[in-house]
Amino acid sequence: MHELSRTVVHDGISDEVAIEEPLEIRVDGAPLAVTMRTPDNDEELALGFLYGEGLITEARPVGLTEDFAVNTIEVTGPLLRDPSARSFYTTSSCGVCGKGALEEVAIHAPNLPPGPTIDRALLADLPERLRQPGFARTGGLHATGLFTPDGELVHVREDVGRHNAMDKVIGRALREGLLPLHDHILCVSGRLSFELVQKAAVAGAPILVGVGAPTSLAVSLAEDRGMTLAGFARMGRINVYARPERVT
Amino acid sequence: MHELSRTVVHDGISDEVAIEEPLEIRVDGAPLAVTMRTPDNDEELALGFLYGEGLITEARPVGLTEDFAVNTIEVTGPLLRDPSARSFYTTSSCGVCGKGALEEVAIHAPNLPPGPTIDRALLADLPERLRQPGFARTGGLHATGLFTPDGELVHVREDVGRHNAMDKVIGRALREGLLPLHDHILCVSGRLSFELVQKAAVAGAPILVGVGAPTSLAVSLAEDRGMTLAGFARMGRINVYARPERVT
Repeated sequence: MHELSRTVVHDGISDEVAIEEPLEIRVDGAPLAVTMRTPDNDEELALGFLYGEGLITEARPVGLTEDFAVNTIEVTGPLLRDPSARSFYTTSSCGVCGKGALEEVAIHAPNLPPGPTIDRALLADLPERLRQPGFARTGGLHATGLFTPDGELVHVREDVGRHNAMDKVIGRALREGLLPLHDHILCVSGRLSFELVQKAAVAGAPILVGVGAPTSLAVSLAEDRGMTLAGFARMGRINVYARPERVT
Repeated sequence: MHELSRTVVHDGISDEVAIEEPLEIRVDGAPLAVTMRTPDNDEELALGFLYGEGLITEARPVGLTEDFAVNTIEVTGPLLRDPSARSFYTTSSCGVCGKGALEEVAIHAPNLPPGPTIDRALLADLPERLRQPGFARTGGLHATGLFTPDGELVHVREDVGRHNAMDKVIGRALREGLLPLHDHILCVSGRLSFELVQKAAVAGAPILVGVGAPTSLAVSLAEDRGMTLAGFARMGRINVYARPERVT
């Protein structure tokens, strides 16, 4: 566990800011992606990223060698396809893009189960149950939490990039054999973009809830994939934008 | 001007969500970058992105052909260098990454002037002066505003991606011959990442202010470039993280 923040002095007082540094994920020596991340749980970040890209389905055969001095993590071991074979440029911020984006996600995302169901008030309360010590110190970290349908927090990760926080949670779940996340709920501390719905869908999560607003494409993808998507979870209230049948 | 939001129905009521769609920026037929953006002012987005990458310094000789049906914008005309020559992968979310990031920005960012100065209370008030009709409808759009040192709003753009909102403002300023922005202040509606400081630095803005928290690398880059960086602008208060001498 590394420090999530460092001290800066402003206006004559000491304060904490979230640490942001680049991480380059390399495959057999070739750059695959660079993301601006908070340097903590980088192996889980790499695993979650690779899983979301459809490049791996298991953690064990993948070798990971991190070099903190130059902010790289080298991936060795069998990938499911040539990572350079993707026809459209993919970034850690924009997810699968370009023509056929919804279709491409559909291909390598598992079918979501009809359940679980969750009580509306409990769903609205999940953001309150995210433990965010880094955010409390800095105000500058996003979080993703993995919950059971009973509202129990299984894992939480904080990062300057919201997509990284989710990759880290999914990478952790992959290591523990929890994927696909058919019996779990993912909760994010911010807005609901296409990319976050995509990552949750590929990980098999049937319910995704966020504190903030969804985008148009996030709602479309959730509808298409059969995912329950809920946003603006605040003060005990919540909006359910897609597949409300899992909310009781 | 396109619509920034569309109507969705949730919980039996109609509501507005921010539109998010991919845009692929192509150069001479080859993909340069894909960003998830709100489809509005795409030419300015492309121009601002190219400027931030050090690929252009003027708008006029650049040809832009947009195809809304497939979400692409084709760039023709002279670029300052081969865009594929960059040694590290660059994304619209992470900016210039990898080893030498600070040095690379330093190379193609102009020296910032010692001025202008701005009254602390006025600086703290700039976020209040951002016009954000899209955010008011959706809660899901970021904004960047270009201000004079007197606090007059020159331009504002809203987008689902905060980096896009800034690219659009810079692209607009480029078209109007306002670059470098030595006599202007940039204001963003959210957090202050490395990437936003980088874009502001390359555009020559001596002061950047945000509503949210800065990251460690944002503070370091602002210090390195001599930029005044201020965050947590709320309720008339503000924190000044770098180069406070421009704040009176």
